[in-house]
This record gives sequence, structure tokens and C-alpha cells, in this order.
Amino acid sequence: MKSMMNKMPIVAAAVAACALFAAGSPRSYAADDAGQTSRYLPEYTSSGDMKLPKDWRHWVFIGSPLTPNALNGGKANFPEFHNVYIEPGSFAIYQKTGVFPEGTIFFKELQLTKQPAENPDGSRTEPSGRGFFPGPFNGADVTVKDSKRFGETGGWGYFNFHHYEPKAETAAARPKSECAFCHIASAKRDEVWTQFYPMLDEVALPPGNKKG
Amino acid sequence: MKSMMNKMPIVAAAVAACALFAAGSPRSYAADDAGQTSRYLPEYTSSGDMKLPKDWRHWVFIGSPLTPNALNGGKANFPEFHNVYIEPGSFAIYQKTGVFPEGTIFFKELQLTKQPAENPDGSRTEPSGRGFFPGPFNGADVTVKDSKRFGETGGWGYFNFHHYEPKAETAAARPKSECAFCHIASAKRDEVWTQFYPMLDEVALPPGNKKG
Repeated sequence: MKSMMNKMPIVAAAVAACALFAAGSPRSYAADDAGQTSRYLPEYTSSGDMKLPKDWRHWVFIGSPLTPNALNGGKANFPEFHNVYIEPGSFAIYQKTGVFPEGTIFFKELQLTKQPAENPDGSRTEPSGRGFFPGPFNGADVTVKDSKRFGETGGWGYFNFHHYEPKAETAAARPKSECAFCHIASAKRDEVWTQFYPMLDEVALPPGNKKG
Repeated sequence: MKSMMNKMPIVAAAVAACALFAAGSPRSYAADDAGQTSRYLPEYTSSGDMKLPKDWRHWVFIGSPLTPNALNGGKANFPEFHNVYIEPGSFAIYQKTGVFPEGTIFFKELQLTKQPAENPDGSRTEPSGRGFFPGPFNGADVTVKDSKRFGETGGWGYFNFHHYEPKAETAAARPKSECAFCHIASAKRDEVWTQFYPMLDEVALPPGNKKG
């Protein structure tokens, strides 16, 4: 055994140890031995509900659209900042290929605007000017690419982990009429609103794919 | 030399190699041998200008205030989404201690709202409602904590890496009259606008510190 250890290249042992470090720390997205960023993949309960993803605030932020209640007749579908993140390992693959790999997770954390809103448009005034400022978190929506599991909703599953806090620990996939129909109708690339996220939209499509 | 290598504990070699991995891959924030997240620290040119930080889009996003031109007499100081990130290793220390460690970097990437704005408040209408949607990137501002180097501006340095693209490769610290005075006057904690970033504001202050 000792002689085997001596023959084992130090670098291989180091890579193995790094993989352990990465697995033990959810904040780590270390390169594996193939130079790939490691991935966090969706987890499901035995009954098929999705578990709340881990550590999304350390994922890659891609943008934060805002549709305030005050600009939507008092009743926006999503009145909060939509802080949208993509799982980093999947993003790395997308950047290389132009295709969201199976298992890609988008996490949309909802964050209320800071109150009170002093102005009729829902804005308030702070030292940097009149506008919209982040306030309390308020739940999350999640989408997952899985062409087999979510074939009925176009290859993506849509989950509501509450539109309030605390977020749900698990969530069931929503029916097509609730989320998927709108993504299928109007999202630019593969049910994803890449038209609002330059970090996604600027990635070249795979050869031969004209969409986007 | 060979006998030394044999005596070197594999784990120590692995930790050293992990540190190399982390240094070589800007997307890696692997735990070091003390269980700490590794840090990216500010880099300066020989003349003392700050170099554009690396890989901020893989840092921890903390919030995106928005003060549109249309709500500020056509001339907001920062008309874009302010996508604010904190360097992850410094954030991990702050979460534990309630104090921003020396070398903490905040990166405020500016992102224009998507045009054309159809409405007088600067908003436009999309399938999810009337509001503000991310458009092209538009430069960045950066702050760095360094009590010695930036003592004249309250212990933080303020840098403008252009308010347009492409971002500058290097930037000189701005005088107190330009940025620091406002942070010193109105930011809640240690010149940082924690009042707009719940992820920062919810962290307990160190014992005996009443501010915040």
C-alpha cells in the first residue's frame, strides 16, 4: 500500500482531494479533473416533488427585471424584483455550447421593493435618487430543464416555492396553463427569456440553429 | 528530496494543490485548510491605480437598486440597474464577524434598462407586465476597504471604471468630494448602504457596536 501511495502521482491525489472539498462545501464550484466546473443538479423527493435548491445566492446572477404593482393596476403578477440566478456548472456548459444542458436550474428569488413607496409609481426617494430599492425577500420560483420528466410542459419544469417567506422546502411541478404556456409563447430561446438577460442572449447559438 | 516528499502528508499536498486550483481558476472559491473560503484581493498597478477585478459575475449578488432617468428629471446620477456584488471570501468573513475585512471589494455593474421605454416613467410593457427590464451593460463602480491606503476617504477607496462600455482596465481613486462624502453621510454601516441590501443588513453587528 505504501509503495502504491508513493507511486500515485501527487497531482491525482490532489485532484481527488479537491473534489472532496468541492462536495463538502456548497459554495465551491471548483474545477474537476477535466477542467469542468462542477454542477449542482436538481433533487427530488420520493414522491417527485422538487427540493428547494441549495445555496442559490452563490450562483451566477443574470438580471433583475422589475414590474411594480403601482405600474400594473395595483396587481402585478410579479411585483417584486426578480433576482434571477443560473446554476454555475450549467451556465459554463451553456456558454460553450449555446444549449442549456439537461438539469439546468434557474432560480428566481423574489425581493419586495423597500417601503414605504412615497410616489404614485411605487418609487421612493433616497440619497441616490428616486427609484426602486431592494427590501425583504418574498419567496421564489424555479425552472428546471428535463426533457423527459417535464415533456408535457415543453421540457422544462416550473415550480413555485411560495411567493412569501419562508420559502417552501419542496414544491410540485405546476400545470402547463400556469407558467409554461407563456414561456413557450414568448420566451426567446428554449423557453428562457434570454431577451431580458444579455449574459444569456450574447451566447452564440449552436451551428444550424436559427432561433434567437 | 524524494524522502521529504514521502514524509509530506498527502493532505497537505492536496491543500496546496487546491490553493493552486483556486488561484488558476477565477470561478473557484474552494475552502482552504482552515475551512475558509479563499479570497480575491484588490490588485494595483505600480502607479497605484486599481486593476479591474476579475470575474465579478461569479461573486455574490446582493441587490439591484434602480433610479431611472425618467423619475429623476431626465438626469439620474445612476440611471441604470446597479447590480451590486461582494467578493465571496470577504462576504464569508463578514457573515461571521459583522465587520467588512480589509480588502473587501464591492462591484457595482451598471446595466441600462431595455429600450425603447414606451411610458413617461421610463418603463416598457412585456408579457410579465409594465416595468423595467435589463438591457446592455454600461460600466462599473468599485469600492475597496483599505483603512491605510484610503484613510483620506474614510477607509474605503472609490473607483469609476467608466459609465459606459468597455470598462476601463485600471482606475484611479476618486476624491472625497465625488463619492465618499455621500457614503460617509448616509450609508448605514461602515460607508456601505446596508439599508438597501438585506443580505448585508441582517448580519449581526459585533458585540458592543451599536450602529446599524
